Amino acid sequence: MTLNSLMGSMLPAIETELLRTVSLLDDPGTQLFHEMLTYHMGWSGIGAGPDATGKRIRPLLALLTCAACDADWQPAVSAAISLELIHNFSLVHDDIQDRSDLRRGRLTVWKKWGMPQAINAGDALFILSHLALNEIDKDFPHQIVQQACKVVNKACLALSTGQFLDISYEQMADLTSEDYWRMISGKTAALLSACTQVGAILGGADGAAQESYRSFGHYLGLAFQVQDDYLGIWGDSALTGKSTESDLVAGKKSLPVLYGLSKNGQFAKRWTEGHIHAEEAGPLSELLSVEGAKLYTQNAVDQMTDLALQSLRAAEPLGDAGEALFELANMLLIRQA
Amino acid sequence: MTLNSLMGSMLPAIETELLRTVSLLDDPGTQLFHEMLTYHMGWSGIGAGPDATGKRIRPLLALLTCAACDADWQPAVSAAISLELIHNFSLVHDDIQDRSDLRRGRLTVWKKWGMPQAINAGDALFILSHLALNEIDKDFPHQIVQQACKVVNKACLALSTGQFLDISYEQMADLTSEDYWRMISGKTAALLSACTQVGAILGGADGAAQESYRSFGHYLGLAFQVQDDYLGIWGDSALTGKSTESDLVAGKKSLPVLYGLSKNGQFAKRWTEGHIHAEEAGPLSELLSVEGAKLYTQNAVDQMTDLALQSLRAAEPLGDAGEALFELANMLLIRQA
Repeated sequence: MTLNSLMGSMLPAIETELLRTVSLLDDPGTQLFHEMLTYHMGWSGIGAGPDATGKRIRPLLALLTCAACDADWQPAVSAAISLELIHNFSLVHDDIQDRSDLRRGRLTVWKKWGMPQAINAGDALFILSHLALNEIDKDFPHQIVQQACKVVNKACLALSTGQFLDISYEQMADLTSEDYWRMISGKTAALLSACTQVGAILGGADGAAQESYRSFGHYLGLAFQVQDDYLGIWGDSALTGKSTESDLVAGKKSLPVLYGLSKNGQFAKRWTEGHIHAEEAGPLSELLSVEGAKLYTQNAVDQMTDLALQSLRAAEPLGDAGEALFELANMLLIRQA
Repeated sequence: MTLNSLMGSMLPAIETELLRTVSLLDDPGTQLFHEMLTYHMGWSGIGAGPDATGKRIRPLLALLTCAACDADWQPAVSAAISLELIHNFSLVHDDIQDRSDLRRGRLTVWKKWGMPQAINAGDALFILSHLALNEIDKDFPHQIVQQACKVVNKACLALSTGQFLDISYEQMADLTSEDYWRMISGKTAALLSACTQVGAILGGADGAAQESYRSFGHYLGLAFQVQDDYLGIWGDSALTGKSTESDLVAGKKSLPVLYGLSKNGQFAKRWTEGHIHAEEAGPLSELLSVEGAKLYTQNAVDQMTDLALQSLRAAEPLGDAGEALFELANMLLIRQA
């Protein structure tokens, strides 16, 4: 309830500032450029609306963290949307890299406008994220601004390192779970930890609390990704008989698969024989479960969730926003299968 | 001579700082990622060396401008290399967008490592540019840092807008020279004007001088691009009989071509009939010349060069670095055909 109420005031502020920033490209002669971004952000084109925008988890995390430090969250909105724009830049490029046709049920930018324009549209979102971040110097002392900028840029470097590993892993046979954790630390956790850390910096938290919030975002990201891996094999949409949405069919080297491969049993044997067909997804997920991967993965989600919540408690978040952060973590990490 | 002497101290400082920044990716497990960037930057792989690195014009312009404001250029090196990294990020993505196999005579990053890794390598160069720019807060007051950051980010937005236009123009029939100037203002001039403007800001120039330096970089960029267009049709390598390097063969809608199309004569007739073959490059360049495009293009180079030099004079650059800026402009804009 507390979360819903805060979201009621934060989400419109986030959306307004996102719109304002993207409208920097709204010039005569570049309407189509602007349209590519408004389409991707979920505001225009077929299927536009709340389902298309995504949940804006990253800016919410930043603003809730800022507010949980007993600070006014309004001046932090530019920084918060900067993080959402970075997330969206990475999605646009990711869709090209993975050759994904659909994102949230809609055609991806590269499918609509071609690869060259989509690369450039992703670049533009990244550039806009920096312009948004520049805006915080109106309300914060320069030292805080510089600190926030460095955290964001380092998170971006970790993000691209994670992306490098993810693309590399497609070609590699002998992946370990260590490789996996390193990849998702960059690809998923780095930006989420930047959200909570930047929120804490702008909220005036001391060094120890900043570190606790950073750690909260980090483990939240890891837990979220491992849960996503779990659902990709044992979730409803992965198991609906004819489903092609199973990560097994996609050949994704997720944590359960790496566990199965390390066991070198029946699952590993079938995996190395080549592409898994949709009708095998059910039986193979059952086999993986028997070999222990389901329990192992669920344990990993639970461990990361515990670490996230421990970190959040250590940060001693205050007031309604503090409560809302616990609610948000529980909402993201709730068992869906 | 003054330019050579200053380059002798600036270029090694630029290269050292570039190497240091790119080495942020030099970790166990990401060696290949690091290698993609060192290869692109011209430091490693087949053909590495001075021909592969490019001339580092952009950071040189920034440092010379800073020094011509009678300031120490050394603290400005991080900002200068940030601009070179932005240039290189745009080259890596440009090569994917244009499907170019070669850059400075070497295989492009996407040809060597595939499109997904190349998109990510370009992103990494862009991220590193921001980390480099962050470094200037050690030596400059925060207000100056923020001002420089905003100039750089706005230039990047103009760069991506120019790239959008360039890609769009490939599909458009009725391009005007106005469209052309708008495109190259973004794609070529924006970053060069950011180099001189940032150099002036870090050199402590007043508002009027900053504007003159910005204008110098802008017109230098326009002159350089139009000269490039001239050489793409009437330069030596475009006219060596069997050459496939002519912009006419590439189908590039450069300024001379747009002029020719606007005349609606024999050249326009042939152009609209479809792909131009290598053996036609000579005769068609002659036809374009007869129809007035060569003179028109040369006049445009001369005009932009005059405007660049006027702006530079208005900036009243000081000392050896001031002289060197005039030398650099003359070197870049010298008639090569």
